[in-house]
Amino acid sequence: MEARGLLIVLSGPSGVGKGTVRSAIFENNPFNYVYSVSATTRKKREGEVDGKDYHFVSREEFEQLIQEDALLEYAEYVGNYYGTPIAKIEENLAAGKDVFLEIEVQGAMKVKQKMPEGIFIFLAPPSLQELESRITGRGTDDASIIYERMQMAREEIDLMQHYDYVVVNDKVKHAVAKINAIIMSEHLRVERVVDQLKLDIHNYFQKVGNES
Amino acid sequence: MEARGLLIVLSGPSGVGKGTVRSAIFENNPFNYVYSVSATTRKKREGEVDGKDYHFVSREEFEQLIQEDALLEYAEYVGNYYGTPIAKIEENLAAGKDVFLEIEVQGAMKVKQKMPEGIFIFLAPPSLQELESRITGRGTDDASIIYERMQMAREEIDLMQHYDYVVVNDKVKHAVAKINAIIMSEHLRVERVVDQLKLDIHNYFQKVGNES
Repeated sequence: MEARGLLIVLSGPSGVGKGTVRSAIFENNPFNYVYSVSATTRKKREGEVDGKDYHFVSREEFEQLIQEDALLEYAEYVGNYYGTPIAKIEENLAAGKDVFLEIEVQGAMKVKQKMPEGIFIFLAPPSLQELESRITGRGTDDASIIYERMQMAREEIDLMQHYDYVVVNDKVKHAVAKINAIIMSEHLRVERVVDQLKLDIHNYFQKVGNES
Repeated sequence: MEARGLLIVLSGPSGVGKGTVRSAIFENNPFNYVYSVSATTRKKREGEVDGKDYHFVSREEFEQLIQEDALLEYAEYVGNYYGTPIAKIEENLAAGKDVFLEIEVQGAMKVKQKMPEGIFIFLAPPSLQELESRITGRGTDDASIIYERMQMAREEIDLMQHYDYVVVNDKVKHAVAKINAIIMSEHLRVERVVDQLKLDIHNYFQKVGNES
């Protein structure tokens, strides 16, 4: 009997480096996590691969998915839909594979409502000062825009308490090691293995009983 | 402000290899765990160091510790007392150090009553058949003694549900890696870091507010 896989949700404020950390995790991927590919209606960019970076679908197809309740969560940004198809996730979890989601904070909260058994990891900046530097480094230097982004980060960090773990993204390789440790340890939780061990005890004493 | 350290309790049935795994963890000890040295009234053996392997005390001294409620747990085996002094543990935890306890299952359950915030890790054999082989390998081959030991293991494994994690001791280095992952991930639990991050937010917006 294959144990069900874990749903791993990596989230955090915009600018914290979710994408970089996720890429680093999937560079070697020694634990064979399955990455959950989002669906989107936005145009494919140079170098992007359909089914790998995103499932590129039409607006009609996306609205069909919404109507069929086939998305774990979805949102609209600057005129384009982004969403998480549920079918593939379910299939992989049932096959005992760990499914990895990298997602915005609002989306993560919707996932938590539907799949509270997921492992929710909040990627945090080393400090808000450092987050400000990273946002500024991306080329935004209008003070009011930065203030707005920081206010949004504050609200997102307020949602942190609904997560299970917090990983500070000081260095990407440290964040990756911590996320891998979290996933490994979650597999070792007593409720995930107790049935298997009870079965082993049962079988052992049945065998010993039959021999004597 | 230094965060309080974690109390790590490693336990499991007799014969599973607790001592070997604990030795391997403390061989390099990259995370600077502090090993909680037990007190005992048994005689010091060749090569043992007082204060490192055990605190060797007299029967009178041990009974004094019992009366002063200075032990987290204690038990008597074949005429000798064994116990866990509480003072050093408290001191290290308060200083932000993780304290590591390797202890019998019955003792671990007593520790859990007094310090339920500890992280309780059950070291399990790959199978009961394998545990039987290990016990037999130690030179015990009287069938009734083996059966008795296995019955005791069964009772100890029944207590597994009171633990937080189960690590199967298939290979020592795997068990060590898993235990280290558990401890790392426990440090990342949201309730352990949320206050620090809230303070950072507070400071950041106070500073920004003063500047504008």
